Amino acid sequence: MRPGRIQEGSDVKIASADVVISSPGRNFVTLVLKTDDGLVGLGDATVNGRELAVASYLRDHVAPILIGRDAHAIEDTWQYLYRGAYWRRGPITMAAIAAVDVALWDLKAQAAGLPLYQILGGRSRNAIRAYGHAYGTDLDELTDSVRALLEQGFGAVRVQVSTPGIGGGYGVAEAGDGGYEPARGQRPVEEPFDPGRYVRSVPAMFDKLRNTFGPELDLLHDVHHRLTPIQAARLGKSLEGYAPYWLEDVSPAENQAALRLVRQHTTVPLATGETFNSVFDYLQLFADQSIDYVRSSVTHAGGITGLRRILDMAAVGQVKSAIHGPTDVSPVGLAAALHLDLALHNFGIQEFMQHVDLTFEVFDVGYSFANGYFQPGERPGLGVSLDARAAERFPYRAAYLPVGRLLDGTVHDW
Amino acid sequence: MRPGRIQEGSDVKIASADVVISSPGRNFVTLVLKTDDGLVGLGDATVNGRELAVASYLRDHVAPILIGRDAHAIEDTWQYLYRGAYWRRGPITMAAIAAVDVALWDLKAQAAGLPLYQILGGRSRNAIRAYGHAYGTDLDELTDSVRALLEQGFGAVRVQVSTPGIGGGYGVAEAGDGGYEPARGQRPVEEPFDPGRYVRSVPAMFDKLRNTFGPELDLLHDVHHRLTPIQAARLGKSLEGYAPYWLEDVSPAENQAALRLVRQHTTVPLATGETFNSVFDYLQLFADQSIDYVRSSVTHAGGITGLRRILDMAAVGQVKSAIHGPTDVSPVGLAAALHLDLALHNFGIQEFMQHVDLTFEVFDVGYSFANGYFQPGERPGLGVSLDARAAERFPYRAAYLPVGRLLDGTVHDW
Amino acid sequence: MRPGRIQEGSDVKIASADVVISSPGRNFVTLVLKTDDGLVGLGDATVNGRELAVASYLRDHVAPILIGRDAHAIEDTWQYLYRGAYWRRGPITMAAIAAVDVALWDLKAQAAGLPLYQILGGRSRNAIRAYGHAYGTDLDELTDSVRALLEQGFGAVRVQVSTPGIGGGYGVAEAGDGGYEPARGQRPVEEPFDPGRYVRSVPAMFDKLRNTFGPELDLLHDVHHRLTPIQAARLGKSLEGYAPYWLEDVSPAENQAALRLVRQHTTVPLATGETFNSVFDYLQLFADQSIDYVRSSVTHAGGITGLRRILDMAAVGQVKSAIHGPTDVSPVGLAAALHLDLALHNFGIQEFMQHVDLTFEVFDVGYSFANGYFQPGERPGLGVSLDARAAERFPYRAAYLPVGRLLDGTVHDW
Amino acid sequence: MRPGRIQEGSDVKIASADVVISSPGRNFVTLVLKTDDGLVGLGDATVNGRELAVASYLRDHVAPILIGRDAHAIEDTWQYLYRGAYWRRGPITMAAIAAVDVALWDLKAQAAGLPLYQILGGRSRNAIRAYGHAYGTDLDELTDSVRALLEQGFGAVRVQVSTPGIGGGYGVAEAGDGGYEPARGQRPVEEPFDPGRYVRSVPAMFDKLRNTFGPELDLLHDVHHRLTPIQAARLGKSLEGYAPYWLEDVSPAENQAALRLVRQHTTVPLATGETFNSVFDYLQLFADQSIDYVRSSVTHAGGITGLRRILDMAAVGQVKSAIHGPTDVSPVGLAAALHLDLALHNFGIQEFMQHVDLTFEVFDVGYSFANGYFQPGERPGLGVSLDARAAERFPYRAAYLPVGRLLDGTVHDW
Repeated sequence: MRPGRIQEGSDVKIASADVVISSPGRNFVTLVLKTDDGLVGLGDATVNGRELAVASYLRDHVAPILIGRDAHAIEDTWQYLYRGAYWRRGPITMAAIAAVDVALWDLKAQAAGLPLYQILGGRSRNAIRAYGHAYGTDLDELTDSVRALLEQGFGAVRVQVSTPGIGGGYGVAEAGDGGYEPARGQRPVEEPFDPGRYVRSVPAMFDKLRNTFGPELDLLHDVHHRLTPIQAARLGKSLEGYAPYWLEDVSPAENQAALRLVRQHTTVPLATGETFNSVFDYLQLFADQSIDYVRSSVTHAGGITGLRRILDMAAVGQVKSAIHGPTDVSPVGLAAALHLDLALHNFGIQEFMQHVDLTFEVFDVGYSFANGYFQPGERPGLGVSLDARAAERFPYRAAYLPVGRLLDGTVHDW
Repeated sequence: MRPGRIQEGSDVKIASADVVISSPGRNFVTLVLKTDDGLVGLGDATVNGRELAVASYLRDHVAPILIGRDAHAIEDTWQYLYRGAYWRRGPITMAAIAAVDVALWDLKAQAAGLPLYQILGGRSRNAIRAYGHAYGTDLDELTDSVRALLEQGFGAVRVQVSTPGIGGGYGVAEAGDGGYEPARGQRPVEEPFDPGRYVRSVPAMFDKLRNTFGPELDLLHDVHHRLTPIQAARLGKSLEGYAPYWLEDVSPAENQAALRLVRQHTTVPLATGETFNSVFDYLQLFADQSIDYVRSSVTHAGGITGLRRILDMAAVGQVKSAIHGPTDVSPVGLAAALHLDLALHNFGIQEFMQHVDLTFEVFDVGYSFANGYFQPGERPGLGVSLDARAAERFPYRAAYLPVGRLLDGTVHDW
Repeated sequence: MRPGRIQEGSDVKIASADVVISSPGRNFVTLVLKTDDGLVGLGDATVNGRELAVASYLRDHVAPILIGRDAHAIEDTWQYLYRGAYWRRGPITMAAIAAVDVALWDLKAQAAGLPLYQILGGRSRNAIRAYGHAYGTDLDELTDSVRALLEQGFGAVRVQVSTPGIGGGYGVAEAGDGGYEPARGQRPVEEPFDPGRYVRSVPAMFDKLRNTFGPELDLLHDVHHRLTPIQAARLGKSLEGYAPYWLEDVSPAENQAALRLVRQHTTVPLATGETFNSVFDYLQLFADQSIDYVRSSVTHAGGITGLRRILDMAAVGQVKSAIHGPTDVSPVGLAAALHLDLALHNFGIQEFMQHVDLTFEVFDVGYSFANGYFQPGERPGLGVSLDARAAERFPYRAAYLPVGRLLDGTVHDW
Repeated sequence: MRPGRIQEGSDVKIASADVVISSPGRNFVTLVLKTDDGLVGLGDATVNGRELAVASYLRDHVAPILIGRDAHAIEDTWQYLYRGAYWRRGPITMAAIAAVDVALWDLKAQAAGLPLYQILGGRSRNAIRAYGHAYGTDLDELTDSVRALLEQGFGAVRVQVSTPGIGGGYGVAEAGDGGYEPARGQRPVEEPFDPGRYVRSVPAMFDKLRNTFGPELDLLHDVHHRLTPIQAARLGKSLEGYAPYWLEDVSPAENQAALRLVRQHTTVPLATGETFNSVFDYLQLFADQSIDYVRSSVTHAGGITGLRRILDMAAVGQVKSAIHGPTDVSPVGLAAALHLDLALHNFGIQEFMQHVDLTFEVFDVGYSFANGYFQPGERPGLGVSLDARAAERFPYRAAYLPVGRLLDGTVHDW
């Protein structure tokens, strides 16, 4: 052994690393790794609204140093990119690492001739429960939207409604819209928010929905970082009678101590983490037992390798998975989530916001959804392939997530 | 007042936002903001080894939404980019925000006709003490290197020496090299490390230097994240008799609790934070009084606005500044540090690794260094200008920071 | 560089420092700094009921050592007066330092030709929301008083009512009075208080107001330090159904741990700090996440320099500003608050108790109030000037804040 | 009983309250209370360098409301002034309250015909051990200075020496000086300080003194707030072999958590508190068991009433008294300390810096010092009287405490 050099564990080398940016319905950044024995592995690197920065990170700084590496050395490559970056953590860096990681797991499972979940430890359940998104500009529209999801088989629904007197609102499509897609436009849309009116209006939403749909339906609600801890505590207390499945992102949580206050005041389950990208973002939350669900995506949290470790630590405190799954998680990212969901023990629920049909002109997927449950499918690897020629038909289109502002004009968490 | 819209506080608009990538000696990414009344503000966005990703972040995602904004609304713009990114924190994101922030402070101070330090509260000291970098492949070379810095007027020197039997080492230039520059090559150089030999060798270095140069010289040493907390604790204890000025980055600190253990065992002052990018990376370190020096750069920690807040919080616990200043901090980033250094009360020391002459063909600077001390200069604003034509003569050249490996091949923190 | 001496950062010197004591409606202490290039900066040093002690502190101990100092060295001067006093902190000392600090920021912004908020980082919102004071000896009078404020455009109102069987009460004007002004008379008025009757009466006040004005109006209430922590906890719980905007000063907080108990029991937002004067008064409150609003004034908390640091630390825990603003904050102190309000990100609300017309015979102000919102105005600096000749027409008149007593005669917090 | 009014407990009223400012050797502010039955009580209100502000506080704001009050109602008057001030705590406010409190205790003991210590609970020991101040510009001068104190009978000596290469130093008289008196001049003298050289020089001082005077002599040293916590920790460790009696004010302690770090690293006893003025300044220090001696003066900590409570709380943790006693504590303030020293159980040691002879032309004292020990004397009350006519011969002369600066010009704690 030559000091300080890693020996190669296999003869299979990464032969090429390409970044495909396409916009079949929305923007996706996909890493395509090919091995010298002809396998193709895919990784999702989409960071909604900042796609080209990750693409540059991968194409200009990561791809050149992947070529020739042992395709089987996943852990070594993860550490090589994480510690080797020196300036580590953060959404761009961790999404780039995630893309490499997922593509390597895809390759590994294909090499084994097995669907990825088998490599991750095999099936821990029969199927993967998902929740859908319902919304409305008023309670009637919302009720119709919930009903539509029930008809699709969902038993768990995220519910969002416009705040009276403010309109719009997180998770609510504009009137006449074909569907909810927050990233849009050449500049961030600026959306008003008023905590007082919002907090007053949410109990009415739950009241209406419980009265309409009864106690069995799992109702989730996303506050989307818009309340202070004490406002969130009050909201939580006010909703306990309606037994929400969870409140999500009740307050910005970079300061992990913030949720401790919320937790003292309410037994409403709390979910957070879609903006997090490493286990360090969760340490105090776990130590304080401040949350019940981990909402990180495979893509933003360093891939299968990164997220699996977060979830293993979560399990110690009986915290469950609730992997991020809106449309900006590409079919590649979603497939990775589904294989992990099936294999890990402390699975909770999977978010599901359907991709538009155009998306599937670029991505061919092996996973399937029926009656409120997903199956990752039995194809080797992730089970997703990308049609590069089709991708070319859908060039990148800049689109921004909105910016929130309070009524006096102050920038607020969106 | 129209709800949710910010009114403009001034008539001065950002007219253009350009990203200049140049490599006069090494790579730099510079943001150039121009206002419609003709002022030019500069911000450094260099992330060593990942330059193009930040350039893309700025050029593709940030520049288009800066045009037309009020050039005076610094706080609003900072929050707009931080909260508006949604996927926030991390080196790429925070460097991009920093570049905008510093360029806006440059513009504001120019509009006021004052050097930036005056806007930041005026002069808190006469001059800014800096420490230089000494190194050697053995103790004799190191001693010569220290002596050379003393002749330049430095009274504080960072000392790094190759570990016997391993060679190379962090901060040590290769033989025949014109100077130490860790970023180099088309792939990361892989550097071996052995914690045992390293910990055994450091006291001998201090012993030699104290015997040679006496007790007055301030000796700093950078462990560069390579020890576990208990190894670091042991190293600290073993050096107390030599009274180091500090030990830097003794252990990776994403898990902020790690340094608590080190702190229980040694009174050697500790510095950390060059890889950090927000106040949240410091909260527990400050609460535990685990460190003595904040090592963040202006560029990586969100600019003047971001770093000033970190340092104000640090002051409560008597923690001092020690702003990052190797060559990958461009003259623009260094000037921003110097203005802050002069103005803030809890200044400690400034890192200084001299740029090569080529660098100044692109950047004309108003700051100066003599006898171990910096002055930011009295030009309005940052006092730095960029020669765009000269910049074109020095196109980007890929260069990577090294990757560390233990002797058995395990990736290790570099 | 001569050891231990500060070099001057500018040629602009403080040429004179005068203290103006006047009583145009009520007492104000104003520091007037002039520079040798002819600018005039103002600072408020009013400590209600102890005005002459601050005036002496400034005139006899501070003014003589300001003459000839660099007018631009704000941070150095702040530290010089804070650390140089040796016996530091406390309302008199910190008000004197604040007056110097605000006058220097006024001068700096004038030198830059910019309104002060631009120097502080620019506009973070369109306008500054303020709350007014309503009161009554019974609920009907209080209702009328609230209505009068609504007609002035206020959307947030502090509500205080006499406790049945006790009369008077904090924040309630005596019958026939032209307005509420607690400082009055040649000796402190002694006001009775009974915690039991008070705690029982407050829910009725909120019930009446919510029924009359509906859920949208922001209702604030000031307990004015009169309850023990467990009494405050009980009061907080009893009011949750009425969704107060905040309860203020529920219990004396020199012992910062006191509010931890209150916080465990109620989600009613808590505000405190008008009697505080340094960041150290808040450290544990912030660490425990015990409060939601910082109520310090610019004048009592060491000026712009002092208060900005408190508020920056507050922001980490999502704690907002609510700067003190009764009539004993002079127009100079209020202007300083407004510039800070506009610039800082974590603004919450601004207290506003209107000065009588006489006050404006001495102070000419650039700020304006309309429809519940303030603007600091666009004049360079603070935008306030003092007519020294007019000030002479209104000599100082001693006036005391009241003293509280329980029904058995025990001195109680007023 | 009329609600909210205090009934009078005695027929003895305060008939006059005068403030005497005199400078017999140095400035003193003395409150003179006379009762309508002819007794005269004295209180010290001297705040070194800010004398006139306290004089104004007493004369303009406190004296007018004392006239006619029951002279026996000490506790009621203390609370009346503390809570009634509203803006409470801080050196000016608490010194004013202390002066009233001590004068009332003086009156009470005179009314009883007893020395004050008897009223405070009687004699807990035979005599009051004191420590003196030794200093030198070099170790030889210091040794001579210690020897002179030993000859006066002191068994405990505070030792201060100039730092080589810096000169001067806290506690060291200038050459040719008649004695050490830090307050001097029409502007603060600016004194240089260098933590590195200071920390290196202190062990040599202890080494010399232990070698010269043996292990029995109690050696105290005052760091005077000049080190950071980790510097202080290191200094403490380095001195353990010399068994100092204490290190005083090792680091600024407004942030009470700072001393926790020092405490983890050294068993050298720690003293602090001369700049503190209320029990709230000690809460965390006591909870953490961070200090061994309370250094507050009677004058700055709210008088006998204020300081006795701090010391009672200290006793719970076996923390002892070490009441502040330099020359700026007037003979009135020192007498109050001595009565308290004799009466309280957890007495530690008393500081003693001799007043110049001129001082005793104004103050006639009943206390005495011999062989290293004080006696408060057996006169009724404090045992001190003031010759008002003599006082007039010594008008106030402005004098400032110095300001510290680091070698680069930064303001430092003096």
